Amino acid sequence: MDNKQMLMIPGPTPVPEKVLLAMAKHPIGHRSGEFSKIIGELTENLKWLHQTQNDVLMLTASGTGAMEAGIINFLSPGDRVLVGNNGKFGDRWAKVSKAYGLTVEEIKAKWGKALDPEEFRAKLAADSDKSIKAVIVTHSETSTGVLNDLAAINTAVKEHGEALIIVDAVTSLGAVSLPVDEWGLDVVGSGSQKGYMIPPGLAFVSVSAKAWKAYESAKMPRFYLDLKKYKKATDENSSPFTPPVNLMYGLQASLQMMQAEGLDNIFARHQRHTQATRAAMKAMNLPLFAPDEAASPAITAVAPVTVDAEKIRGAMRKQFDIALAGGQDHLKGKIFRIGHLGFVCDRDILSCAGALESVLLGLGNSDATPGAGIAAAAQVFAGK
Amino acid sequence: MDNKQMLMIPGPTPVPEKVLLAMAKHPIGHRSGEFSKIIGELTENLKWLHQTQNDVLMLTASGTGAMEAGIINFLSPGDRVLVGNNGKFGDRWAKVSKAYGLTVEEIKAKWGKALDPEEFRAKLAADSDKSIKAVIVTHSETSTGVLNDLAAINTAVKEHGEALIIVDAVTSLGAVSLPVDEWGLDVVGSGSQKGYMIPPGLAFVSVSAKAWKAYESAKMPRFYLDLKKYKKATDENSSPFTPPVNLMYGLQASLQMMQAEGLDNIFARHQRHTQATRAAMKAMNLPLFAPDEAASPAITAVAPVTVDAEKIRGAMRKQFDIALAGGQDHLKGKIFRIGHLGFVCDRDILSCAGALESVLLGLGNSDATPGAGIAAAAQVFAGK
Repeated sequence: MDNKQMLMIPGPTPVPEKVLLAMAKHPIGHRSGEFSKIIGELTENLKWLHQTQNDVLMLTASGTGAMEAGIINFLSPGDRVLVGNNGKFGDRWAKVSKAYGLTVEEIKAKWGKALDPEEFRAKLAADSDKSIKAVIVTHSETSTGVLNDLAAINTAVKEHGEALIIVDAVTSLGAVSLPVDEWGLDVVGSGSQKGYMIPPGLAFVSVSAKAWKAYESAKMPRFYLDLKKYKKATDENSSPFTPPVNLMYGLQASLQMMQAEGLDNIFARHQRHTQATRAAMKAMNLPLFAPDEAASPAITAVAPVTVDAEKIRGAMRKQFDIALAGGQDHLKGKIFRIGHLGFVCDRDILSCAGALESVLLGLGNSDATPGAGIAAAAQVFAGK
Repeated sequence: MDNKQMLMIPGPTPVPEKVLLAMAKHPIGHRSGEFSKIIGELTENLKWLHQTQNDVLMLTASGTGAMEAGIINFLSPGDRVLVGNNGKFGDRWAKVSKAYGLTVEEIKAKWGKALDPEEFRAKLAADSDKSIKAVIVTHSETSTGVLNDLAAINTAVKEHGEALIIVDAVTSLGAVSLPVDEWGLDVVGSGSQKGYMIPPGLAFVSVSAKAWKAYESAKMPRFYLDLKKYKKATDENSSPFTPPVNLMYGLQASLQMMQAEGLDNIFARHQRHTQATRAAMKAMNLPLFAPDEAASPAITAVAPVTVDAEKIRGAMRKQFDIALAGGQDHLKGKIFRIGHLGFVCDRDILSCAGALESVLLGLGNSDATPGAGIAAAAQVFAGK
């Protein structure tokens, strides 16, 4: 139905009307005092969301741009880095690292499985001459719906003492608690079209004092992604290059909404949606791609056995105006992914579960009791 | 007055209501067939605006990001480049080039003066072993309101035969004819918040076949700004990284408006506004910072003698709700800049001239006949 689409993909995520209308305001000059105040407010609220006193910098870029900045500002060609790779994004950070001449050691897990913190610990413990300069980890692996055990990996990094930890929090920030200061996370990258509830185009990097120290001796060519330029400007409530004014209007509205809801409530909501979605899938006999203990709070990947995932996606879209994400790379046609990140309410999960049940019935491939999926989700919402 | 501000800065430029409302639509999935169609339409219309069959690629970045991409994709560390530097942006491209280890020779002119094409010709003619790999030129120098003679500089580059020409068209594209194919411009960078009439956040790079050939042997580290990734995706009506969906909705609306107006009409309008603005300033005895023969079609810089430029800016803002730009770097307080780029109609120029006359009277620093400025602008509009 025209104009009726419901986004349940891991990004862009649904955008509140308040944010859309804020973005439709006429831009003002980005060097004006008025806009300076907005940058100041955004920076404070971004720190709140990151649970940090570190710098949080805003870039006009996608999440990949933020992660690249997070890598190239603090390392030099030849530096040894450990990169966790259990999906498309972990794989991407390994590629970025190689493009800049880093010595990359990948710690891999099968797509759909979590990284093993013990492998990080072993590598780091064996590094007696402290040649490992950074550990790069994807927190929520968007391609598979796996949440890696960042706390455990980070503990191993902290035991090493020297290496920086660089985190892709693109689909975890704003969905699950990421206490940047408490954990001592050095660099955290994220993007606007995710938990932030605004359209794509803005990216964020938080930077610790330890990372800034590494910056001083880091030698990689950069200009647009040179984070020191952003820090200098941000300290003056400004930006080094023309910022995306209207997206920042949207961010202002969305961060105010997030503050009104409160971090704990936001995390509880994402947890509830994850549980309800997973319960519904199980009740429909649809295999979950990621294990319960490593379930992303942002995306649930489902691996249907008897029917092509793309057929399900097509029918969801055509009949119920719900956009789901497909599998990426070798998972294309094998999984579909339900995004429940950002501006998603309990009703949306019920809609999705109900639509899926109907689609499976329609495709003649459901051996589940009709209504079982919705019932399972409803039970989660009823607190049973 | 609240909500009544009129932007006459060189970016962000005024945004049509149609564009603002288009941007307030809910995003759709950037990997959907529906969005693919939009990318296809945008790409075609961008080629029309660039008067080219070359690739025109869209990046989530500021204009600086586009220019950096335009430099680092086609050159290798140590390569010799000529960089025209007669303002803040020319200076910036020299800095970017140095950050990436290029051997930079700057051809300079005083801020407010145009680059001398003869200096380029001499350097290029003397380069018998063809060691100059690229010439980097800012077409309209936003910081000073100077339009460099790109056609003449380009002729010298073409006589050289080997060097690429890389053009900063950030405030010239959409304001003055830039026939990319006719002139054989290899790389042209631009940004959304200028002639495109949309808010900041999108940047554009056009790339010639000759530049792609240079790409094959170019060796600089890059990933997010790797233009081959953008070409590959654009060829499939897609994007390598999540694009700024809502800004692209806005771009769709603005390019449709531009096509309805027609390139010749757009250029004539900018020319008319430039002439009317300059005539008004002269009639008010306000010295123009750039000479007539090198007047930017986007920005007129004015260097008041008897009153501080910042005082004029402040009064224009406070009393008439018109935002003008100040001078940058050493020109701060010495000049103010009137942006007449993008979504500007004849009425806006009259408003600005009238307000300026009133402000100068109020500051007690005008020796001009009251009404002379408006009259001079009106004469231009009357075709006299």
